[in-house]
Amino acid sequence: MYINTFAQFKKQLGQLDKWLVTASEYAKSRNFDPNVFPTLRLAPDQFPLVRQVQIACDTVKLAVAYLTGKPAQAQEDNETTVEQLQARVRSIIALLEGLTASDLEGAASRVVSQPRWKGEWMTGEDYFIQHAVPNFYFHLTTTYAILRHNGVAVGKRDYLGAQTKRPPAAQSAGN
Amino acid sequence: MYINTFAQFKKQLGQLDKWLVTASEYAKSRNFDPNVFPTLRLAPDQFPLVRQVQIACDTVKLAVAYLTGKPAQAQEDNETTVEQLQARVRSIIALLEGLTASDLEGAASRVVSQPRWKGEWMTGEDYFIQHAVPNFYFHLTTTYAILRHNGVAVGKRDYLGAQTKRPPAAQSAGN
Repeated sequence: MYINTFAQFKKQLGQLDKWLVTASEYAKSRNFDPNVFPTLRLAPDQFPLVRQVQIACDTVKLAVAYLTGKPAQAQEDNETTVEQLQARVRSIIALLEGLTASDLEGAASRVVSQPRWKGEWMTGEDYFIQHAVPNFYFHLTTTYAILRHNGVAVGKRDYLGAQTKRPPAAQSAGN
Repeated sequence: MYINTFAQFKKQLGQLDKWLVTASEYAKSRNFDPNVFPTLRLAPDQFPLVRQVQIACDTVKLAVAYLTGKPAQAQEDNETTVEQLQARVRSIIALLEGLTASDLEGAASRVVSQPRWKGEWMTGEDYFIQHAVPNFYFHLTTTYAILRHNGVAVGKRDYLGAQTKRPPAAQSAGN
């Protein structure tokens, strides 16, 4: 289930990449600078879009690191344009393309901790279910919400992307 | 992992219930009707808060039904007040409180289908990872975003809720 959830994250990041394309096209059609989008926010005390995208990306990168035991590669949070944000998103898609089920063996029982937790820790499974998954979807959906609130024509299908539907015959043939 | 993810959904719905309390208190402190909140939306062509909460609830209810094989109980979508929405949320929390790991045996390989899919189907696992989880978090986060955008003082900790941290000793004692 871990590898399949990371595959889902990869699909969702691909959708995010498309929303950013749609946002840029919308800006061009309305004759404003698409790089206004990274600065937009839903509330004055909530992070702007640039930070939402960075945290969505980092949540996945850190989950891969914690659950595989391989260190995460540091990235500067210096994006200011939509294109730079797309490159950030694609760097995480590339990371996920290299991830295999065997990298994730024993993920559920790994010890996950951070210096500021002062020795406290979470199991890999608790960390994944209680932190990584809700946090990823939070920042992904907030990014979507900022775009949608500002007139970008993204809809629910653009959020979910394609789903693995199986043809009728395969069902009666057994599974 | 299914039962633990449903436990996480239960926690998140408890957080949602608290956001609605915070919203009502905010309305009282500013002397406006809290039942304006269910009507608010982030974009004119996106569902208002009442529908976001209903769909978040239904996503969980239907996932329980599809993955256990027990039919979902129909609920009228007739809420107009914050209190009625809280009752709807609590009905799903109650449903999840009655859910056990044995109810979910074989969940991953169940056949999930809907009449409008014309015979196509998804495995329980694909349905859960590709539809139920992203859809639940989408409507949960959109609800949060609508409240936050309209001045309700909810923050990231209110979104995530408490996490299962384990004390330092337990780690060295093995797991």
